[in-house]
This record gives sequence, structure tokens and C-alpha cells, in this order.
Amino acid sequence: MVNNKTTYVAKPMDTLKNSLEKNIMIDVKGRRTYSGILEGYDVYMNLVLKNVSETINDENKGTFNMMLLRGDNIIFISPSGGE
Amino acid sequence: MVNNKTTYVAKPMDTLKNSLEKNIMIDVKGRRTYSGILEGYDVYMNLVLKNVSETINDENKGTFNMMLLRGDNIIFISPSGGE
Amino acid sequence: MVNNKTTYVAKPMDTLKNSLEKNIMIDVKGRRTYSGILEGYDVYMNLVLKNVSETINDENKGTFNMMLLRGDNIIFISPSGGE
Amino acid sequence: MVNNKTTYVAKPMDTLKNSLEKNIMIDVKGRRTYSGILEGYDVYMNLVLKNVSETINDENKGTFNMMLLRGDNIIFISPSGGE
Amino acid sequence: MVNNKTTYVAKPMDTLKNSLEKNIMIDVKGRRTYSGILEGYDVYMNLVLKNVSETINDENKGTFNMMLLRGDNIIFISPSGGE
Amino acid sequence: MVNNKTTYVAKPMDTLKNSLEKNIMIDVKGRRTYSGILEGYDVYMNLVLKNVSETINDENKGTFNMMLLRGDNIIFISPSGGE
Amino acid sequence: MVNNKTTYVAKPMDTLKNSLEKNIMIDVKGRRTYSGILEGYDVYMNLVLKNVSETINDENKGTFNMMLLRGDNIIFISPSGGE
Repeated sequence: MVNNKTTYVAKPMDTLKNSLEKNIMIDVKGRRTYSGILEGYDVYMNLVLKNVSETINDENKGTFNMMLLRGDNIIFISPSGGE
Repeated sequence: MVNNKTTYVAKPMDTLKNSLEKNIMIDVKGRRTYSGILEGYDVYMNLVLKNVSETINDENKGTFNMMLLRGDNIIFISPSGGE
Repeated sequence: MVNNKTTYVAKPMDTLKNSLEKNIMIDVKGRRTYSGILEGYDVYMNLVLKNVSETINDENKGTFNMMLLRGDNIIFISPSGGE
Repeated sequence: MVNNKTTYVAKPMDTLKNSLEKNIMIDVKGRRTYSGILEGYDVYMNLVLKNVSETINDENKGTFNMMLLRGDNIIFISPSGGE
Repeated sequence: MVNNKTTYVAKPMDTLKNSLEKNIMIDVKGRRTYSGILEGYDVYMNLVLKNVSETINDENKGTFNMMLLRGDNIIFISPSGGE
Repeated sequence: MVNNKTTYVAKPMDTLKNSLEKNIMIDVKGRRTYSGILEGYDVYMNLVLKNVSETINDENKGTFNMMLLRGDNIIFISPSGGE
Repeated sequence: MVNNKTTYVAKPMDTLKNSLEKNIMIDVKGRRTYSGILEGYDVYMNLVLKNVSETINDENKGTFNMMLLRGDNIIFISPSGGE
């Protein structure tokens, strides 16, 4: 039985809440990555990012002051400094 | 605890609201970008744009007075001048 | 605050309503475009079109008196003469 | 204002109703077309067709007395003789 | 007006009901076909088939006593002997 | 009329129930197959499998004591010994 | 009849619950695998992972202290030590 462990479960959306105002890296379909500061999100994993740098096929493609990134295309999100 | 921060969270849809009547850039699947003035949107991220210029594979493909762009294919939206 | 602007927001579906009986161009996945007169639509962006000409990869592929085009595959819709 | 026009709007599903027992052409993803007599349909645009001929990449691939075609893969439907 | 015809409309799901215990051919994405006896189905067009033979790219790939085929990937279903 | 036959219809999900604790083969998109003992399932056709062997492009890729296979990518499921 | 067996059915989501705080391997579309300790999950199979190593096309691509992996792209999940 692991029912007595459920209070320790990390909810995926809490990972986003804990990353607010912090730097995260987002891996997106089509060999794209985005790094920036998480300003907000919704239940679809749509993200609001600030000071974003974009890479496509490992090439730096530019920077964006502000970005609304759709959750649909995200493969994974990683906080830059671990938890 | 970050609960005391939740009132500062930028909601993705608010990014669109704050961009109304302003210029935005939209990155769309298939190496397409659209730049134009945001006239409206709905919960599916369908956008109404004015004075739109289109690029495909970094080539300028033309301009459109008015466009209804489906939200489905959007990768990200960036306000042209940051917040 | 932009709340006082919300009454001016152009709703995506209104773009379709305003285009009824007018000529529109539809960009569809797979490098297809359709031009014709909009006769009707529904909430899925399924369109009824009249006097339609089709291009695939910029080649004229033929004409259709009447067409029901599924909304699923649409990238954008542009009224031929702006608003 | 076009509200006074809404009673004239052609609903996409009515195009199917008006095509019952008539010949239609269906364009399907993967460069497929199906021509046959429409016997029925549902809200998902699943179609029942009779006396169907199939082409793939413009090659005639055969005929089917009866076919249930899923709506998912349809790009457009065109009544053979207009409305 | 075709309202007086609606009682004759063939519902897509009735095509499946009428094919129970009969041989059907199923065309599936990825150039696959399955032929077998229809034993059951559900609203998602998931099918239970018996005595199934499979072809991929027109090559016979083997037979299966029993198969549960997901509706998702189906392009069309054709009863082997017409109506 | 086949209404009097509906009590004999094999429901797709019953095929899974009847396969519990038995060996099944699962064909998955991307030329993958999985063979193993069915331990459980849910309405999305997510499967719990035991003693699983995996092939990709007909090559044996390894074995897994336990696996949770998502229903999304399944093309078909076949009980190893027929009904 | 197998109704008397249903109490033994392993529910897919229970596989995740039983893997909490344990090492799992996740196979993801695009020839990617992720190995790490499962910290949490939700009903969409979105996973929170700790101490993650990533491979793409069998090449080790790096490690991540913490990762939120979307459930959408998962093919299968395997607990590292069987049940």
C-alpha cells in the first residue's frame, strides 16, 4: 500500500507554480528549446515567458522580451536549478 | 511556499488582452510566421489580425489586410515590444 | 488596464459573419489554398463555399461550384478585400 | 451589421442533407478522393456512400458497393452538380 | 426541402450494425488493410474482428484469429458484399 | 433487422476483459509490437503488461518486467490464442 | 465469465502510484527515452521526474535535476525493477 504516501506526491502543475519568476527550459517538438523566466501558465500548460532565448536544431535563433508559448507542443519543462 | 505570489501570475490569455491593437509576431507550425496588429481572439487562441505580413521558411510571402488565424497551429506569440 | 477596451475586440467568428456572401481565401495544410464566396460556417470553422478555385503547391487544380471545407485543416482565412 | 442576414446562412451540415441520394466527391488526406452517392452521415461527418470509386495520387484504385468513410480525414466535400 | 427524406438516411453506425457477423474490409492509415468478420464495435468505431488477414503496402502480412482494432486510425470500412 | 442480434455483439472492451492474465500482442504506431501478459487496462485502452518483449521494425529490442502502454498509439490488439 | 476476476485488475494509474519515489524509464515519441525517479503525476500522465537522464536515438543527451514531462508524447512507461 502506498496510499499513505499520496500527501507527498508532487503534482505536475505545482512544478510550474514553484517555478514562477524563475528560469526554466522548455523542450518543444521540432527540435526547439526555449529558455526564459516563467511569468504565468494555465491548465493547458500554455506559458507566459520573459527574456526568452530560442534554439532550433541547437542553433541560437534569437531572443524575445515576452512570449506566450502554447502547451500543445511542449515535450518537457525543466527548472534551471533543479527543485 | 509561493501561494502568496499567485496574485502576480500573468495569465496566458491576459498576454493577448494586453496586446490588443498592438503589433505581435506569431510563430506557426511549418516554419511560418505572421506579423500584424491583434484585433481580437477567442479561448481557442484563434486570432483576428490586421495588416499582416507572412513569411514561410524566412521568405516574405505577402501581406493581408485582415486575417483569421486558427489557434491550433500556433507555436508561440510574441508582442513586438515586450510587455 | 484594458478592460475598457473589450467592447471593441473583434471576435474571430465575427470575421466569418462579416464575410458572408463575400469572397475569402483559405490557406489549408498541405500547401493548399481555396478562394470562393462564403455561404455559411459553423462553430468548428467548417465552411460552405461557392464558386471555389483550388491551388495546391501554387498550381491551379480546378474549380468547384460548391464545397464543404472542414475547419480542422485550416491555417488561416483572409477576406479578399480586408474588412 | 449582418445580423439581418443570418437566416440565409448555409449551414455546413445542411450541405450534406441537401446532397442525400446525390453524387458527391470527397477529398481525403493522403491524396485520396472518393466519389459516390451519399446515403447518410452523422455529426462527425462520417459518411455512408454507395457506388464509390477511389483514387489515390490520381490513380483509379477500385470501386466499392458500400463504404463508411470516417469524417476525421476529410479535407472537403463537393456535391457533383453544385447545389 | 429534404426533411421528408430524413427517415431514409443511412446512419454510419447502422452500417456497422448491418455488418455484424459478416465480412468487412477496413482501410487503415499507413497503407494497411484488414479483412475479417465483424464481431462487435463501439461508438469510437473500435472494432472486434475474427479471422482477420492483414496487408501492409499490398503485401499479405499474416492472419489473426481475433483482433481489437482501434477506430482512430480507420480511413474507411467497406462491407464485402455491398449493402 | 438485426436488433435481435445485439445481445451477441462482442464489445471491444470485453475483448480486453477476456484477455486478462493472458498473452496478447499489441501493434503500435511506428512499426512497434509488444507481446506480454495483460494485467489491466482502462477506458483509454491504456494497458498494464507483464513479461513484455518489444520489436521495432521486426527487430527484437528487449524485454520489460512491467509496462504501462498508452492506448493512444495502439493500432490493434490481438489475443495470442484467438478467443 | 471473468467478472469474478475484476478485483485483481491492475489499473494503469496504479502502476504510476506504485512507482512513486522509484526509478522508471519512459519511452517518448521521436526515439527519446527518459530515466528518473517518479515524484508525481496527474490524470493526463504528465509526470514529475527527478534525476533524469535523456537519450535521443540511443545517444545520451544530458541530465536534468527536475523535469515535468507531458503525458501526450509518451509511448510507454516501465518501472525499472519490474513490479
